[in-house]
Amino acid sequence: MSLSPIERTVFVVSDSTGITAETFSHSVLSQFAQFEFEAIRIPFIDTIEKAESVAARINRCAQEQGQPPLVFSTLVDPKMAHIIGKANCTFLDLFGAFVRHIERALGVKSSRSVGRSHSAGTSNKRYNNRIEAINFSLAHDDGQYVNGLEQADVILVGVSRCGKTPTSLYLAMQYAVKAANYPLTPDDFERDTLPATLLPYRKKLFGLSIQPERLAEVRNERRPNSRYASLSQCLNEVADAERLMRMENIPWLSTTTKSIEEISTKILDEIGLDRRLY
Amino acid sequence: MSLSPIERTVFVVSDSTGITAETFSHSVLSQFAQFEFEAIRIPFIDTIEKAESVAARINRCAQEQGQPPLVFSTLVDPKMAHIIGKANCTFLDLFGAFVRHIERALGVKSSRSVGRSHSAGTSNKRYNNRIEAINFSLAHDDGQYVNGLEQADVILVGVSRCGKTPTSLYLAMQYAVKAANYPLTPDDFERDTLPATLLPYRKKLFGLSIQPERLAEVRNERRPNSRYASLSQCLNEVADAERLMRMENIPWLSTTTKSIEEISTKILDEIGLDRRLY
Repeated sequence: MSLSPIERTVFVVSDSTGITAETFSHSVLSQFAQFEFEAIRIPFIDTIEKAESVAARINRCAQEQGQPPLVFSTLVDPKMAHIIGKANCTFLDLFGAFVRHIERALGVKSSRSVGRSHSAGTSNKRYNNRIEAINFSLAHDDGQYVNGLEQADVILVGVSRCGKTPTSLYLAMQYAVKAANYPLTPDDFERDTLPATLLPYRKKLFGLSIQPERLAEVRNERRPNSRYASLSQCLNEVADAERLMRMENIPWLSTTTKSIEEISTKILDEIGLDRRLY
Repeated sequence: MSLSPIERTVFVVSDSTGITAETFSHSVLSQFAQFEFEAIRIPFIDTIEKAESVAARINRCAQEQGQPPLVFSTLVDPKMAHIIGKANCTFLDLFGAFVRHIERALGVKSSRSVGRSHSAGTSNKRYNNRIEAINFSLAHDDGQYVNGLEQADVILVGVSRCGKTPTSLYLAMQYAVKAANYPLTPDDFERDTLPATLLPYRKKLFGLSIQPERLAEVRNERRPNSRYASLSQCLNEVADAERLMRMENIPWLSTTTKSIEEISTKILDEIGLDRRLY
């Protein structure tokens, strides 16, 4: 069937998972916010036959919708990319567009090996580090387990429901950062000190805060109409937590309008983990 | 200082988090496995002054190392991209390379708004769905909480330590998929049936398995020299689990040589969640 003038179909084609092409397509298409894009990911296209079947699918789509779809490709094999590129589409060849520049810069030919980017054999150290970090962050979520905190790369602190858990998991999953998190509670504010458990790790602490109004919304989803979720409680806890973090010289940021990607990037920047080896 | 012939410095420059550019650089550089790349991510470059300071840093690097670095950029503003592009480097302009093709295909100009791709205001429905999915997957990790399983998009089943937890979290975080997971244990194998809790959700089940030798390795890291980690125990559990999954017609795959990205992509493919709206 044909689409409305603001709808467009997008194919994301890859010899591997397609996650790179999908991330990129999402990023660049966010510059065309007046459109609605339906993205169809077609991963693991690693033979000529599969490429031909994708080209046929793209052609059918173009005919049915009366307009050629956008196609983001990270196909490494030039023959497969060529097959897709000949279909009735706007072909955006992420790999082909850059690999020759890089070959020239490095003075070698690329290996053109299909399906490399997210393949992680069990021998892959970086991959094992990520899994280990995920297990660490899960075990050290919400202060539930305090043994091994000395192995943490960072310990996120803040009031309940300010975003510590998703941020810890993202840091672990994406960056193999061992991120623990530990709540700051009314008990701590009464004593006006950090929890004793955290004192030996003061240099690893990073604070998250949040606007009290937003916090009340989030807590109300969890425990509707509770004292815990009341605006007055949230106002007090946030004020106390921010005062404590300032007093203790803990770097912190507000999560209110930030995605977990943005929060994580700022934390990595702050704790000096902005370099990676490929 | 100068680098060895196989070392190269890579800058990843973005007006937002740099995660898109980093994912892409990692993917394309995996085709040059004979080199060692050190990637330096420079996020939130959103003014001319910051762009000029990055260009100066790139020039210093080129001089110190005796060779120009690779620079992957997703800078949206053409003036900022131009400033970096003039530095002494191999400039790979991800945004600039494609935006004109897309503008032509869509018949409009892009909004050229800086910092859009990972910015997620709290009003963003897709973003809130991701956070909700993360909370769901955490609450339904390892069968610890069975209320609400009817809301799951998928329930991963398999023996202890076969990769259920990291896969569930990845599906939630990256794709807003509510992924629960539930262990298959020797008790289930003795009864030779699925756990009763899972029977109403048979159509949501997806199995993970693993080579017994690899499973023994993973379990030994957790509980060295235990019966739980012994090869004979792992051989039995894996054989029993695979037999049960075959008998119950549960789709399943082996995680042994696959990354969580690859496992997740196969699951999405299988359960028909390969379409997304941007």
